[in-house]
Amino acid sequence: MDAKTLELIILPAGLLAVLFAIYLARDVLRRDTGTKEMQDVAGTIFEGAVAFIRRQYSTIAALALVGAVVIAAVISAFETKEVADTNIFGVELGIRTGLAFLVGAACSMASGIIGMYISVKANVRTAAAARRSLVEAVQVAMRGGAVSGFLVVALSLLGVYGIFVTFGGFTHPEQAPFLIVGFGFGASFVALFAQLGGGIYTKAADVGSDLVGKVEAGIPEDDPRNAGVIADLVGDNVGDCAGRGADLFESTAAENIGAMILGVAVYTIAKNAGWANPEAWIFFPLVVRAFGLISTIVAIFFVRGREDENPMHMLNRGYWVTTALSVVGLAITTNVMMQTGGQLGANGTPAWIWFFGAGVVGLATSVAFVYITQYYTSGSYRPVREIAEASRTGPATNIIAGTAVGYETTLATAITIAIALFVSHFLGDQAGIKNADGVNVGGVFGTAVATMGMLMTTAYILAMDTFGPITDNAGGIAEFSRAEAGAREITDRLDAVGNTTKALTKGYAIASASLAAFLLFSAYIDKVNLILGRQIAAGKEGVHLLTSVNLANVNVFIAGLIGAMLVYFFSSLAIRAVGTTAQAIIVEVRRQFREMPGIMDYSVRPDYARVVDITTKAALRQMVAPGLVAVATPIIVGVLLGYEAVAGLLMVGTIAGVLLATVLNNGGGAWDNAKKYIESGHLLDAAGNVLGKKTDAHAAAVVGDTVGDPFKDTAGPSLHVLVKLLATITLVLAPLFIR
Amino acid sequence: MDAKTLELIILPAGLLAVLFAIYLARDVLRRDTGTKEMQDVAGTIFEGAVAFIRRQYSTIAALALVGAVVIAAVISAFETKEVADTNIFGVELGIRTGLAFLVGAACSMASGIIGMYISVKANVRTAAAARRSLVEAVQVAMRGGAVSGFLVVALSLLGVYGIFVTFGGFTHPEQAPFLIVGFGFGASFVALFAQLGGGIYTKAADVGSDLVGKVEAGIPEDDPRNAGVIADLVGDNVGDCAGRGADLFESTAAENIGAMILGVAVYTIAKNAGWANPEAWIFFPLVVRAFGLISTIVAIFFVRGREDENPMHMLNRGYWVTTALSVVGLAITTNVMMQTGGQLGANGTPAWIWFFGAGVVGLATSVAFVYITQYYTSGSYRPVREIAEASRTGPATNIIAGTAVGYETTLATAITIAIALFVSHFLGDQAGIKNADGVNVGGVFGTAVATMGMLMTTAYILAMDTFGPITDNAGGIAEFSRAEAGAREITDRLDAVGNTTKALTKGYAIASASLAAFLLFSAYIDKVNLILGRQIAAGKEGVHLLTSVNLANVNVFIAGLIGAMLVYFFSSLAIRAVGTTAQAIIVEVRRQFREMPGIMDYSVRPDYARVVDITTKAALRQMVAPGLVAVATPIIVGVLLGYEAVAGLLMVGTIAGVLLATVLNNGGGAWDNAKKYIESGHLLDAAGNVLGKKTDAHAAAVVGDTVGDPFKDTAGPSLHVLVKLLATITLVLAPLFIR
Repeated sequence: MDAKTLELIILPAGLLAVLFAIYLARDVLRRDTGTKEMQDVAGTIFEGAVAFIRRQYSTIAALALVGAVVIAAVISAFETKEVADTNIFGVELGIRTGLAFLVGAACSMASGIIGMYISVKANVRTAAAARRSLVEAVQVAMRGGAVSGFLVVALSLLGVYGIFVTFGGFTHPEQAPFLIVGFGFGASFVALFAQLGGGIYTKAADVGSDLVGKVEAGIPEDDPRNAGVIADLVGDNVGDCAGRGADLFESTAAENIGAMILGVAVYTIAKNAGWANPEAWIFFPLVVRAFGLISTIVAIFFVRGREDENPMHMLNRGYWVTTALSVVGLAITTNVMMQTGGQLGANGTPAWIWFFGAGVVGLATSVAFVYITQYYTSGSYRPVREIAEASRTGPATNIIAGTAVGYETTLATAITIAIALFVSHFLGDQAGIKNADGVNVGGVFGTAVATMGMLMTTAYILAMDTFGPITDNAGGIAEFSRAEAGAREITDRLDAVGNTTKALTKGYAIASASLAAFLLFSAYIDKVNLILGRQIAAGKEGVHLLTSVNLANVNVFIAGLIGAMLVYFFSSLAIRAVGTTAQAIIVEVRRQFREMPGIMDYSVRPDYARVVDITTKAALRQMVAPGLVAVATPIIVGVLLGYEAVAGLLMVGTIAGVLLATVLNNGGGAWDNAKKYIESGHLLDAAGNVLGKKTDAHAAAVVGDTVGDPFKDTAGPSLHVLVKLLATITLVLAPLFIR
Repeated sequence: MDAKTLELIILPAGLLAVLFAIYLARDVLRRDTGTKEMQDVAGTIFEGAVAFIRRQYSTIAALALVGAVVIAAVISAFETKEVADTNIFGVELGIRTGLAFLVGAACSMASGIIGMYISVKANVRTAAAARRSLVEAVQVAMRGGAVSGFLVVALSLLGVYGIFVTFGGFTHPEQAPFLIVGFGFGASFVALFAQLGGGIYTKAADVGSDLVGKVEAGIPEDDPRNAGVIADLVGDNVGDCAGRGADLFESTAAENIGAMILGVAVYTIAKNAGWANPEAWIFFPLVVRAFGLISTIVAIFFVRGREDENPMHMLNRGYWVTTALSVVGLAITTNVMMQTGGQLGANGTPAWIWFFGAGVVGLATSVAFVYITQYYTSGSYRPVREIAEASRTGPATNIIAGTAVGYETTLATAITIAIALFVSHFLGDQAGIKNADGVNVGGVFGTAVATMGMLMTTAYILAMDTFGPITDNAGGIAEFSRAEAGAREITDRLDAVGNTTKALTKGYAIASASLAAFLLFSAYIDKVNLILGRQIAAGKEGVHLLTSVNLANVNVFIAGLIGAMLVYFFSSLAIRAVGTTAQAIIVEVRRQFREMPGIMDYSVRPDYARVVDITTKAALRQMVAPGLVAVATPIIVGVLLGYEAVAGLLMVGTIAGVLLATVLNNGGGAWDNAKKYIESGHLLDAAGNVLGKKTDAHAAAVVGDTVGDPFKDTAGPSLHVLVKLLATITLVLAPLFIR
């Protein structure tokens, strides 16, 4: 088989994944929707979620339209004929980039909306299935989640492929990747606001309704008397499902485009050397992604097991099938597409073997993060237990212990990323691919292949992630509709597994963002040099190619400092937004308790819709400031300090963002599970009595859990997106930073 | 006056400051020591402090001896004759560097020990003075603090000057700065362990005795029935006084040496161009420091005022006098020492004017940080009030609001540092001093002058800092000895001012560390190039000078990632150490309450000494792990990834460390003052009633205060030292990283 044949797989694989998502959606939708009470609650959740998503995406769409116009104008003004050596420049290039931005934004929104639609339909069906069978409930939730997973990855693949081909991918494969960067920017623009808005909504509703219900009124979580409870259930969907979907849509899109830009360097070498199918080096990321989708489709059928089995094992089985098939797909792709016309790498080994190794490093990194996240956020290991123990002496020591654990998690994260980058770069280097100046370009390409390898399992990981809010909702529906104990026991088990899968996805998102960082920097440098090269060719004086991002240059250092600061300041705004929005909810629920006294004896139904509406408005208002800060900072720094400095902002900002996200995600997850650890009766006093609910230790653990909420579900995940947004924004607006 | 004459000021100014410190010490010591009860408590505190310092400094001395031997061996083995172009290399250079390390360590220990000795003598005298007069109490506390301030700065100045002259500063001024880097490393080595051990001790004692006393037994803070209370009072001295003294000793030493290394570049230019007194460019930092000492001596006499005046105004008066005199000293020094033989800078302005401007930028940065810190940590402004408001809904929202405020403080910090660096670099550039290759070396030297300008006020700032633990102790002694209400009212007012001055010093320490960072990087690059230059001259193949620290190089990026991670991991260890040590205290105090029931009715005196002893042992055990991690990480990265990568670790680690320290210091300070804001009765409920002590809002604020303790007094200040240690360790061990 040759590379041209293998490239034919992209379109069918993407379409197959969409068809499979439709099949799964139909499978889920035709299932039993449970009792009348269940349907009632589910209907209310559905309405709230749709109302939020409609308003949120209208706002985002409006912002995206403005963004597209601005981008088109900037590109039109700065990438002029004088610096162009293609027949696309100025206004035409501006309009194309603006269009690519809009298509990226639209694809991201579409996958978010459809995925969430199925998710809020799958929740009640999971609750209903839980009345009969654990395995069936797992399957409904996982298939519902997989709709989202497949749509995200398939729309990203088809979108990038479509726009690539439209913009001349077959005729000018060496130029088209640069023309489609707008797609990635559009995707990250939407992702930023989707994650921020969803994250603020979900945690404000969670914190607000818990504080006013559990703490003030003394009624249980998810109790129907709490007017905030529906907003809380809606929040699970809009944050974890739509938000994370947009996050990973952006990852797969931006990192594909970045890898294709890096592929251009190898394409040029391959073409000059006369190797067969040089464009294979550019198409490679898309083919790998296609194999990842096929692997995931097969794996979905392996999510099965016995009624008495740990549901996590069923999900893990599918994950391992995806990973194993991905290794096979990776071997085929590298073997077929990475032909070097007989030229061998180090030790006389063919080049593709080294890149295959790099891809396996990426898959292994994904597995490593799954285990690291489990170690730090599961009650079976030291960190969570340490926090639970510290709860004995009250909330202060609980917070201190949780902070120490959160900070500690950066160790394993940084070391793993460092090893993955080092090894994949080393392996790529060994392939021995040198450009005309004798520079080995394989190293950076090795990190790109590792990123592609890692992202092969995205659809499966995302299905597991959406499993989280579906089962969380199923538990809420069961509680709310006072379902039979057996069903509630099953939904509780699934909810616990869902917490783990949500944490894993965040670890995966962080790992992919950091592994991809290096490839996106390199793409930025390639793009800058493309422009500088044109200026040099046009005879402009005093222009040199960007060969180094020199931290010892004062402007680069200042920009790096601002990049690291941006990460904190952005998180500060996101965390504060949750607090402000939660206050609005507390005020409203208190008012309902006060003015509708019948609520407490169930004689009056609280006005859920009003709380949903207030939360929606507040969350959407609060998402704007952090979003604009994230977009504006790199632009201002780039314009003031230039293109080398903005690369410093990008790189140091990425390091700082990845680490702070790790701290926030894992710290929050550990606090959450320390509370669960105590609730499960694992903490004993000196006399051997269980220190469970209603003890001071539990109250202290609840404080930690509440503090962790905006960390792990608002600021942390938003930072993943911020890091990638920095990369796409600088990639698209590079011409603005060059004078 | 010529530069040679001005250089003569160094030795007399240093000696004068020592004599003045002796005068102040005698003045403090001969004052009234109050009632018998006061003397009793003070005696117990004194014993505990001496016991801790003796044990701590024995441990540190042992570690320093090992460090000196290792350094001597490494330098002997790596800086061999083959790479040397002076007559000092190999074993001789190794022994000299080891000796310089020991002298630096010894000077740092001496200033810490003596300063703390006076501090624990001044506390009771301040309490006694408070029985008579506010002004007298302020003066006793400030003079006691000034002993520490003068000794730290004078010993640093005399130490650097002495070793510089001993190692040939007069005969080979261009080589001597490189020979004395060991002094700075010795100072930062001691500072790291002094700050860690002291910081762990003070906050473990504070948190531990508060939790077991206030929370469990329900007795007030500083109540004599609490067996941990003496340990708490001892802790104020060993953490804030000895720890911060070592921190700023290290700043003044390392940054002087770094500036002298940068001066070598200008010295070479000046010598080749035949400008008068070229060595003035190297001596400059020492002369500036001497003027700073003289300014501070004068300023001490301006700390006076009326009995009804806010004590903060008296301290501020002195600070402004120091700053104003420093500007004058700076003008004289730059005018006399920065002669360029008639060559003019931009706009035909003499070079010294531009450098004078850069120095003023440094002084202005110091003032800016004083105000920024006040804004974020004082109850008069939005941030602290926001945290106090959030306390209404419990500890969780208090922590969330405090975290948001802590993260937010990075904005003003980063922007101020960015502006200071940019402007001082720009001004230095304008001086138009170019080396033989036409490279403008003035910019980096401008940042060095700014740092020197900023550090002119160190002695005064440090006196204000030590004012903190002295007044804190005076308050504790008054409470403990049940002194009359008037005295307690005065000590309470002083204590509140002391909290502010402690916070200011941390802001100052952070600002100086970050402003100095750039000069220390540049010194590292100069040192590396000195070695590489020798290798090139010796005909070694494939060696190039280090002209760029390229973040786009995968090894540099990995090292940067590890540098940023180190900051979190180190903080995690430091924070956890406080928790572990506090647990040991809680167990012991509980045991005493249980086994000695007479304690509660005052009939039995608790065994304070035992708690002091337990805290001492635990704190010293806990300081080793974070200390070794900090020392080992840059060495391992440097050996594995090389000299350019370790520069990446240094720079990104500095950015990350400065920002995290800002978050921890200001967040902790804001939590502390939010509690005080509520205690002062500023928080009202909906009906207008005061929500003060014993309300839920106050309890929530106490949680925030306790969480902030290890942040602001252990991890944050230790990070200042870590950042500078990274710079000195890489500077000394550079030969190890070059192959």
